[in-house]
Amino acid sequence: MSTILNDAALDQLFRNARSFSNFLPQTIDDDTIKALYDLLKWGPTAFNAQPARYLVLRTPEAKQRLAPALSEKNRAKTVAAPATVIIAQDKRFFDELPQQFPAYDAKPLFEANPALVDATATRNSSLQGAYLILAARALGLDAGPLSGFDAAAVNQEFFPDGEHNVNFIVNLGYGDPTSLFARGPRLGFEQAVTLL
Amino acid sequence: MSTILNDAALDQLFRNARSFSNFLPQTIDDDTIKALYDLLKWGPTAFNAQPARYLVLRTPEAKQRLAPALSEKNRAKTVAAPATVIIAQDKRFFDELPQQFPAYDAKPLFEANPALVDATATRNSSLQGAYLILAARALGLDAGPLSGFDAAAVNQEFFPDGEHNVNFIVNLGYGDPTSLFARGPRLGFEQAVTLL
Repeated sequence: MSTILNDAALDQLFRNARSFSNFLPQTIDDDTIKALYDLLKWGPTAFNAQPARYLVLRTPEAKQRLAPALSEKNRAKTVAAPATVIIAQDKRFFDELPQQFPAYDAKPLFEANPALVDATATRNSSLQGAYLILAARALGLDAGPLSGFDAAAVNQEFFPDGEHNVNFIVNLGYGDPTSLFARGPRLGFEQAVTLL
Repeated sequence: MSTILNDAALDQLFRNARSFSNFLPQTIDDDTIKALYDLLKWGPTAFNAQPARYLVLRTPEAKQRLAPALSEKNRAKTVAAPATVIIAQDKRFFDELPQQFPAYDAKPLFEANPALVDATATRNSSLQGAYLILAARALGLDAGPLSGFDAAAVNQEFFPDGEHNVNFIVNLGYGDPTSLFARGPRLGFEQAVTLL
């Protein structure tokens, strides 16, 4: 039976969590990346399709491949982050459905409908990016998501075969609290929610 | 200083969490909806733009307005769910930026670029839908997300002014564990993650 998580957990996941641009000089090891994937992978996706693919950049060489595609504002902080995850979508995600969604044969549904493939890949890889952000926070990491980059340049550099598309990018590390500025507000309940 | 959440919390959020089609006959009151919004609203969005809007359907009348637009497979379970959230995107989300993103005047950036508006609304309202799913689980609720519906019909019924688009739908309640079938597998680490 599920209960409400305690306040410390709710604070860590949502209420006190912040997006960071600057991180402490503390590396993220392979085991932490594996623990992160072993949480986020359980987040739900349509047809259990899991279209997201994750490129985890930690070496200077990998960061330099990404750097030219980043907006000026995002470049230095991304190169400096302990890890940078390129969240991409596999355009042929439905090839995995016979294994990942054994309930019935859903692959032909996608093979016949490129617009459905695109909408499903975009929506669900975005959901999976959000699962990554929250799984990172659950593991005590901080995230810095960003979408200011030249997507065509990222695709050309990292996915030259044309089979994947970048969706967005998330820097990961242990956030430097001294680098935070004032937090933005949020829409009020009445602005965002309608009860019917 | 953040720590790793305990195993019970990680289980509840990710490892043991399931998507439910059937819920126990237990209603969700206004205070729970408000508590849900007060968590999910803190999830990060680009430019703090928060493009998602949430229609929470609990009355039979509201459910009947949605029913004809649902796929056959999703209709009965959605009508029966204690609450159904239509996650929509506000096409004019950037009108709120002067208040929500005081750092600089970002509204003209969007006003001049409809493709950026659409991509930002789609990606970020999807992220916000994932925040809703995980915030629900953090509050002990269960979610049943679905995308099998006629989007044009939902838009026509609920957003006749053309200023919003449905993204996806999430049923909420306290899941009936007797209704679960075997869980789908997940892609292995090597299939989904590349370390660079």
